[in-house]
Amino acid sequence: MKILGIDPGLAVTGYGVIAENRGKLTLIKYSTVRTKPDETIQNRLRRIYNRFNEIFDEHSPDACALETLFFAKNPKSVFQVGQVRGVLLLCASLHDVPAFEYSPLEVKQSVVGYGRAEKPQVQYMTRVLLGTRETPRPADAADALAIAICHANSSRLKKFTGR
Amino acid sequence: MKILGIDPGLAVTGYGVIAENRGKLTLIKYSTVRTKPDETIQNRLRRIYNRFNEIFDEHSPDACALETLFFAKNPKSVFQVGQVRGVLLLCASLHDVPAFEYSPLEVKQSVVGYGRAEKPQVQYMTRVLLGTRETPRPADAADALAIAICHANSSRLKKFTGR
Repeated sequence: MKILGIDPGLAVTGYGVIAENRGKLTLIKYSTVRTKPDETIQNRLRRIYNRFNEIFDEHSPDACALETLFFAKNPKSVFQVGQVRGVLLLCASLHDVPAFEYSPLEVKQSVVGYGRAEKPQVQYMTRVLLGTRETPRPADAADALAIAICHANSSRLKKFTGR
Repeated sequence: MKILGIDPGLAVTGYGVIAENRGKLTLIKYSTVRTKPDETIQNRLRRIYNRFNEIFDEHSPDACALETLFFAKNPKSVFQVGQVRGVLLLCASLHDVPAFEYSPLEVKQSVVGYGRAEKPQVQYMTRVLLGTRETPRPADAADALAIAICHANSSRLKKFTGR
């Protein structure tokens, strides 16, 4: 199973593609999609849409996974990230790829085994689980990989327990 | 100039198309796009996207206009409306139609001449300005028409004053 994890943002959207095979995880690719603040919001969303169309075409993921939004952030950024997420969910839907959501707590619980883990612990375990030498950079891409790992683990659990 | 006004929402998105010619406004069409709560968010966004692709194709507007979000609403609905707006702004961009935003105060100021006007006053003036016998229903479509009128008036003003 191939999983695309996404950490959406208007300026920087991180993404990571991993494969899961009988519990073994393999890193396929990670990177970011960036847009410039001097562009209109319309053009920025269009750029994100066009790039993710290419990413879905290139990797043909079986599922994509996003983090649920943390609502304590300021409303303007919640709203902006909402617009980007709308475009990403649409893009996944047009490629017939189901999207799954996990809370930050679920991601930490799944990757580190502890819901209140700090960011460096999540990054360290992401590295260990994917067998990479260095921590994936930037943080947006590392976060996207952690979300993908969370989905890989959750869907395996769901398979085992039949939930 | 043909203007598409949109009042976005996940369950009901109202829209209205008007034409402006030398200050005279004409009503072309108004309606709503509805999605069902038992569908996934992905499918609901896709339905909104597909319907608005048809609406942009059918009416070929020169501009589209949306209300800026009122942030006092609950964060979950702000976030949901954000996702729908992202899809609508993308749709406009893919049709090369520029999008404009107006605050609720600007819309009321423009349609009624008074920024603190009540909803019935806005609906009454929308009816008068477009020369319709009855108030457009539902409220989502009437709101979309008011936003379109606001853009028609603002772009005329901008033309006159050269702003």
